[in-house]
Amino acid sequence: MIDLCLLGTGGMMPLPYRYLTSLMVRYNGYSILVDCGEGTQMALRKVGWSPNPISMICFTHYHADHISGLPGMLLTMGNAERKEPLIMAGPKGLERVVNSLRVIAPELPFPIVYHEFSSAEEKLTLDGMPDFEVTAFKVNHNVMCYGYDFRLSRKGRFNVENANALEIPRNYWSRLQNGETITHEDGRTFTPDMVMGQARTGIHFTYVTDSRPTDSIVRHAEDADLFICEGMYGEPDKIQKAREKKHMTFYEAADMAKKAEVKEMWLTHYSPSLNSPKDYLHDTKKIFKNTIAAKDGRMVTLTFPEE
Amino acid sequence: MIDLCLLGTGGMMPLPYRYLTSLMVRYNGYSILVDCGEGTQMALRKVGWSPNPISMICFTHYHADHISGLPGMLLTMGNAERKEPLIMAGPKGLERVVNSLRVIAPELPFPIVYHEFSSAEEKLTLDGMPDFEVTAFKVNHNVMCYGYDFRLSRKGRFNVENANALEIPRNYWSRLQNGETITHEDGRTFTPDMVMGQARTGIHFTYVTDSRPTDSIVRHAEDADLFICEGMYGEPDKIQKAREKKHMTFYEAADMAKKAEVKEMWLTHYSPSLNSPKDYLHDTKKIFKNTIAAKDGRMVTLTFPEE
Repeated sequence: MIDLCLLGTGGMMPLPYRYLTSLMVRYNGYSILVDCGEGTQMALRKVGWSPNPISMICFTHYHADHISGLPGMLLTMGNAERKEPLIMAGPKGLERVVNSLRVIAPELPFPIVYHEFSSAEEKLTLDGMPDFEVTAFKVNHNVMCYGYDFRLSRKGRFNVENANALEIPRNYWSRLQNGETITHEDGRTFTPDMVMGQARTGIHFTYVTDSRPTDSIVRHAEDADLFICEGMYGEPDKIQKAREKKHMTFYEAADMAKKAEVKEMWLTHYSPSLNSPKDYLHDTKKIFKNTIAAKDGRMVTLTFPEE
Repeated sequence: MIDLCLLGTGGMMPLPYRYLTSLMVRYNGYSILVDCGEGTQMALRKVGWSPNPISMICFTHYHADHISGLPGMLLTMGNAERKEPLIMAGPKGLERVVNSLRVIAPELPFPIVYHEFSSAEEKLTLDGMPDFEVTAFKVNHNVMCYGYDFRLSRKGRFNVENANALEIPRNYWSRLQNGETITHEDGRTFTPDMVMGQARTGIHFTYVTDSRPTDSIVRHAEDADLFICEGMYGEPDKIQKAREKKHMTFYEAADMAKKAEVKEMWLTHYSPSLNSPKDYLHDTKKIFKNTIAAKDGRMVTLTFPEE
C-alpha cells in the first residue's frame, strides 16, 4: 500500500492558488519527495503531512521551480531536530547546486548523502526495502532531466500443499517466504521456489515533468497504475512553444498514456498562463479517457489488486 | 502619498495561511521590497501587486526566511522580460549570498547593482527622488542585521506675498520652489528661502525585524506614523527564549513603540508556534494602545497630514 500526494501542480512560478509541482510518496514509514520548488514545505503542511519522515529527496533537474524550496525545507527539518541522514538523488551537479543553495542553510543537525546519476538509467536502492524499487531515467528537456518510475513488487502466494507434500517443517515456512534457502539437518535443501507461487502483480507508477515525449517514458510507464505527467500547455496551438521550451501539451501526454496503456493519468506542471486546465480535458480524453487534470493536494492510496 | 503592504507576517518558516514577513513600499511609481523569503512572490501576487516595478530589494539579513524567495522572484522578473537594473541593498556579504543562490537563476536579462553596508547607519539615495530617504540602521540580532527607516519630506508652502513684495518675476517661482537659486539680469540673486515657508511634516515609517530592543530602533522610530516591528512571541514566559534567539516579545516591541511615541504599531514576524497573535493583544495594548497584530496582506496608504 502506497500513499501518493501531488503537493502542487504548477510549473515555472508558484501561484497563490497553485503550488509548484512536487510529489510525496509514502510507503512503510518511509517517505520520498520528488522535487522541492518554492512553497513545497507550505504545500506539505497544507495537506497535513510532515517533512520529518522524508528519507530521500529526488530531483528531476535543477531549474528553480524544482529546487528553490530546498533551503527552507532543510531548515524546517533542522528546526525539528532531525538527526537521521537525508538522501538526495538527482542528475549530475546535485552536490554543487545544493551546497550553493545552502549558503542560507549552512548548519544542519543531520548529514546529507548525495547520489548523482552517472548513466541514463539508475536504480535507487532503499535500505530494508528490497521490494520497493525506484528507477530514475533520463528524459528530454533543455537541461539534463530525469523521470522516476516506482515499483512495489509482490511475492506469489505460499503453497501449503507443496510445503506439506515436501514435508518441509513448519518453522521453515516464513523463512522460505522471505526468500531464504535452508539446509535441513537431514541434508535436504529447501528453496523458496518449492513453496512460493509466481510473483503477483505489484504497484507501479511513473512520474515525469519537464520533457518532450520520449519512447523511454512510454516504456517505463507501460501498464502503470498511475502515470503522473506534465501538461504544460492545454491550448493546442501551443505545440510549437512546447517544442521550443522542451515541454508537452496535454495531448502529447495523453498520447504517451495511451501507448503505455496506463490505468490513469494525472496532468500537472501547468503553465502559469493556464488558468483552467479542465477546459482542455474534453479533447484530451478523446486521446486517453482516464485523464485527470490534477489539482494541488490530489492524493491516492495505491493498493495491490485483488487476485 | 505612500502605499505600504505587509505581504506576510510569518517568521522562520512559511505556513499555508501565513507568508514570511516582507514589506512592499510604493511611492511615485517606484517600489521597494524589504526582504524576500520563500513564498514572497506568491504573497505579492495574492495582493495583486506586480514585481515588475520593484527597483530595489533591501535585506535585513540573510537568514533563509528573509531571502529564500529571491531566486524565484528574480526568475519571475526575468520571465517578464525586465531590462531595468535591480538595486539590492543589505549587510556585508550580499553579493556573495545572492551569487550563491543564483546557481538556480544564472541567466537574467537585467543587471543587479549591489549596495553593501559598510557602517552602522547608511542612507540609500534613490535616483530622482531626493525627497524620499531610506536609512538602513544596524539592530541587534545573532547575525549582522539592519532595520529600515523611510522618510518622505515635504517642502514648506510658497509665500506669494513675499514673492510679490520682492518683485520676483513669476517665471522664477516654480524654479525657486524646486530649490534653484537664480541670478536676475539686474544682478539681484533670488534664493528659495526668500519665498518658501518652513518644511512641513512629512511621512515617516520604520521597519524592524529580527532584533532585541535597542535604543537605535527607538531613536529612528521616533514620532513615526507607523512602526512595523517583529513580535516573535506573544507568550510572556517566552522572554528568555526571545533573549537567547535575539528576538522580541510583543511587550518589548510595545515598550519601544511607547518610548518612540509612534502613532501606530503593527506586529509581524510571528513564531510558527504562535497560532493566534491577537490573543496577546489585550496585554500588549496596556503598554502601547495603538498596537495591531497584523495579518498577511495588511495595507495602508500614508498621506501628508492636513496643515
